[in-house]
Amino acid sequence: MILVDGRPGTAVSARDRGLNYGDGLFETMRLHQGRVWLLQRHLARLRHGCGRLALPYPGDSAIEQDLAQLLASGQEEGIVRIVLTRGDAGRGYAPPPGAAGRRIVALHPLPPPGPAAMTVGICKTPLGFSTALGGLKHLGRLEQVLAAAEVAAAGWDEGLMLNDAGLVVEATRHNLFFMRDGQLLTPPVAGCGVAGVMRALILETLAQHNMPGGEAPLRYDELHEIDDMFLCNAVAGVQTIKQVEGHDFDHSHAVAALRGPLLAAGVAWLA
Amino acid sequence: MILVDGRPGTAVSARDRGLNYGDGLFETMRLHQGRVWLLQRHLARLRHGCGRLALPYPGDSAIEQDLAQLLASGQEEGIVRIVLTRGDAGRGYAPPPGAAGRRIVALHPLPPPGPAAMTVGICKTPLGFSTALGGLKHLGRLEQVLAAAEVAAAGWDEGLMLNDAGLVVEATRHNLFFMRDGQLLTPPVAGCGVAGVMRALILETLAQHNMPGGEAPLRYDELHEIDDMFLCNAVAGVQTIKQVEGHDFDHSHAVAALRGPLLAAGVAWLA
Repeated sequence: MILVDGRPGTAVSARDRGLNYGDGLFETMRLHQGRVWLLQRHLARLRHGCGRLALPYPGDSAIEQDLAQLLASGQEEGIVRIVLTRGDAGRGYAPPPGAAGRRIVALHPLPPPGPAAMTVGICKTPLGFSTALGGLKHLGRLEQVLAAAEVAAAGWDEGLMLNDAGLVVEATRHNLFFMRDGQLLTPPVAGCGVAGVMRALILETLAQHNMPGGEAPLRYDELHEIDDMFLCNAVAGVQTIKQVEGHDFDHSHAVAALRGPLLAAGVAWLA
Repeated sequence: MILVDGRPGTAVSARDRGLNYGDGLFETMRLHQGRVWLLQRHLARLRHGCGRLALPYPGDSAIEQDLAQLLASGQEEGIVRIVLTRGDAGRGYAPPPGAAGRRIVALHPLPPPGPAAMTVGICKTPLGFSTALGGLKHLGRLEQVLAAAEVAAAGWDEGLMLNDAGLVVEATRHNLFFMRDGQLLTPPVAGCGVAGVMRALILETLAQHNMPGGEAPLRYDELHEIDDMFLCNAVAGVQTIKQVEGHDFDHSHAVAALRGPLLAAGVAWLA
């Protein structure tokens, strides 16, 4: 089911600036036991992104009303996607003054469960760099589309993406954490990659529990030197890795250590 | 008037991948005296872009039939925009196997004529870098949207965009050429910027007429040392600049020298 500006619908205007210019943002959230988890964090990221792009934010209550309408079906498990665009406009990049914006809120079924531990490859599609857009979950995801096509063609479960400097930044649809010298680290996402909600929650959880970790770059040629790696996003929570490019990760120490703190932080679907 | 997959319409599916992931390309073309100019060059760029993105190309004849349908109204002057997307799909970046694709072809009125010579500023929004997408006219144009908002707020006619290395690459909706040491030069667009149809035509025209020129980087701190600059795109043809950031360009020698060769090459609306 899809709601367009609060009303059930399957179509949007062909003049929408999200379609024509990628002029918008999105969030992907987990529905579990009839509840949208980490909702306030997702809304906070949307508000922040709208601020950076001068995009109209419809307000928490409009989105919460949409969610209530979608969940009235009684569906208990699934994925909710929110798209905010600048709305309709004629031709031309300049945002029209007083653009009303548009919101599209959709409820999707939960995909079939993936493997307990993922086989991960290295994508050839490099991640670009954008000082203006880095970290934002904006609608222009063509690099991820090309990388996901590589993942599908190779038969991997996921693929890591490197930037032009040869640094491992993220996977096509996950952020990543790696263990090195007893520290649980994640690559920085300023200018490159998405500042994921689950990534932020894990960083906060590490700090709250005095577990050593934080942000640190990871060079491609260091991949075989790290002790563990896992993936994360707001749908999967954390995702164990079996193998990266033939290198085995069969420890899962990092994920085991995080499980209790993350459950306590509200990532209930890990249980 | 808008045609969606060949039929008059004003809406597209909310599941369109162009909307949800920026998974598509577009072209903007000039209608003049009832004819779409440089059409074969635009179609060639679309075919090339579809090849790079493994996006389904609908074929020249489908697009040409759309154009015939739009022009049956008798409109003689205007702008035609073609958007090609990968079509509908469920959630997830991976392109669905056998995606049919979608084409949206729209006829817009010609905007009111701009100034004979433009006042141009320098945008603060930097141009990102993408090895995978550089040069392509893909749907993710958020950096241009942000820069165009700067242009509007400052009251300029256009704005130059710099990359993170401090190189002037293009304007928000134009490519640019500059004159230095008797050569007519344009910044390279590999990894950054759009490889414009008019830019390519001008480069070919220079070569055919043995006029000295080609591609060369332009540093921001060299802007006051160049002798002339003009803008170009497939709608305006070439566009004279009056001033860049307070620096006067009142020569227009370069545009004058190009006028005859470009008219001969089919840029008839320059006349």
